[in-house]
Amino acid sequence: MIGQKLLARLVRDGIDGAKVQITAHDIAFPDNAVPVDRQIIGSVTEPGVMERLVADDPEYVFHLAAIVSGEAEADFDKGWQTNMFPCWSLLQALRARHEATGGSYRPRLVFTSSIAVFGAPFEDEISDTFLTAPLTSYGAQKVICEQMISDFSRKGFIDGVAIRLPSICVRPGKANRAAAGFFSGIIREPLNGVQAVLPVPDTVVHTHASPRSAVGFLCHAATLDTDRLNGRRAINMPGVACTVAEQIEALRDAAGEQAVALIRREDDPAVAHIVDNWPTRFNAARAHALGFRAETEFREIIQTYIEEDLKPAQ
Amino acid sequence: MIGQKLLARLVRDGIDGAKVQITAHDIAFPDNAVPVDRQIIGSVTEPGVMERLVADDPEYVFHLAAIVSGEAEADFDKGWQTNMFPCWSLLQALRARHEATGGSYRPRLVFTSSIAVFGAPFEDEISDTFLTAPLTSYGAQKVICEQMISDFSRKGFIDGVAIRLPSICVRPGKANRAAAGFFSGIIREPLNGVQAVLPVPDTVVHTHASPRSAVGFLCHAATLDTDRLNGRRAINMPGVACTVAEQIEALRDAAGEQAVALIRREDDPAVAHIVDNWPTRFNAARAHALGFRAETEFREIIQTYIEEDLKPAQ
Repeated sequence: MIGQKLLARLVRDGIDGAKVQITAHDIAFPDNAVPVDRQIIGSVTEPGVMERLVADDPEYVFHLAAIVSGEAEADFDKGWQTNMFPCWSLLQALRARHEATGGSYRPRLVFTSSIAVFGAPFEDEISDTFLTAPLTSYGAQKVICEQMISDFSRKGFIDGVAIRLPSICVRPGKANRAAAGFFSGIIREPLNGVQAVLPVPDTVVHTHASPRSAVGFLCHAATLDTDRLNGRRAINMPGVACTVAEQIEALRDAAGEQAVALIRREDDPAVAHIVDNWPTRFNAARAHALGFRAETEFREIIQTYIEEDLKPAQ
Repeated sequence: MIGQKLLARLVRDGIDGAKVQITAHDIAFPDNAVPVDRQIIGSVTEPGVMERLVADDPEYVFHLAAIVSGEAEADFDKGWQTNMFPCWSLLQALRARHEATGGSYRPRLVFTSSIAVFGAPFEDEISDTFLTAPLTSYGAQKVICEQMISDFSRKGFIDGVAIRLPSICVRPGKANRAAAGFFSGIIREPLNGVQAVLPVPDTVVHTHASPRSAVGFLCHAATLDTDRLNGRRAINMPGVACTVAEQIEALRDAAGEQAVALIRREDDPAVAHIVDNWPTRFNAARAHALGFRAETEFREIIQTYIEEDLKPAQ
């Protein structure tokens, strides 16, 4: 989902004002996929796929491929084989190109990490110097990718940045298996006249950014001066921290009581357990200083969804 | 080195007062190796080695195998292939035994991590909630092993503990390629009447524990109640924080001016760079609360070396 929105932005704006040739790789593309120079269907777990994908020395590599937290928790092997090992293969493939070019090729790699790298108990506001003690396999896999990217960058093989995305909200389209999916569902479904399930108490606090902001983070990370990172290449992204109740209030403001009435409260202890172990608020001072920008109120996040993704009523 | 001392302790004391059957695996054993039930020579990088080593469901597994920081920095591939991938293979082998036994087998794994998981800039006293931002490949590999062990433990496949060792001092025997080797060398060589090189200024602060303490940490970690770790299975070990000048003073007290005169100061910017990026002092409150004990003064560390490892003069 973010991938398609990133491609649309790259086609429209290029990078640093310059047009870019784009190769997109995914396990599947939607019917209305953004047209790009080369579209390759395949899995990141195929042997040799990374070598083929980077054979022509791309200047920028965006690595977003992952299975979501709920699926990685349910299928342990698939989680590690999808979320960790392909990142290693990609780094080794880029390093091989670096070495084949006598060291002149050193691409910018932008990796989508996640706030799931953190685990309870937390500081009140999680800073960029807080330990990564994830409580999901997904989080562990993201930490490990960050560490690999950091070391390959330190050695000068690549120039990597790992951005830790907050929950992306409102996700368009169908619900996926991410445990955080309901944060979008309780907004998206009612805006589309459909019932939504809220599996946690409305006092839960969480940090959100819109897909548009996520794309902005990715593009900003692509051109960031990485000398400013002082070797700490994993960055907590900014977002809107609010309670579920505040999300629901913003929905009421945007779409009225009949939308809110479509939210059905149905506690799911498994989801609540995962969400309880997620961080709530961040100190994003470092990201702000580096120029990353997100929404500041949840109502803006709803507005972005309405503008970008809500189908007009028939 | 620590491995042989651990074996001697296990042969002497067993674990929890009970005798243990011991299989030792290493790339080589010294002529005066501690006799154990089974001694296997081989590399942790051999395919299938971990499956064979854990085939009889050992109750305790101590994973100490690694190449040292200097070598992992010099040989990037060897570092990752030795320090990271075998840990993954070991975890998968243990998980396979866990599953083959219908979940009843859940061994205690004790892993030797390192304070090299931390990288500058530091807090004044590094706590257990400080981020792991290593500045060496060795440190990155140790962090990644910690994360894997944590996740396999969280899933219940194993019951792991990662202890972050400070520099082990005084290392007996020959110098190895560890960048921290001189911390031992400037004590060991003079005590044996041999010249030693000090490659950094004597104002450098570092934290040390004796090999005897390190063995104590390993044995304590083997029987620790891991419920007390609250899922945070990587623990900073205690040690003696002191300057190189204080080390030298303790040497003077133990062996006189003629020993100190054998230390030759010869700055090595490459070593200084690695050491500058290492942490200095730790807040070991958590380790202390969990019952881990180390020396409290550097003179005790010298005394331990003299008792355990110094050959009587001819």
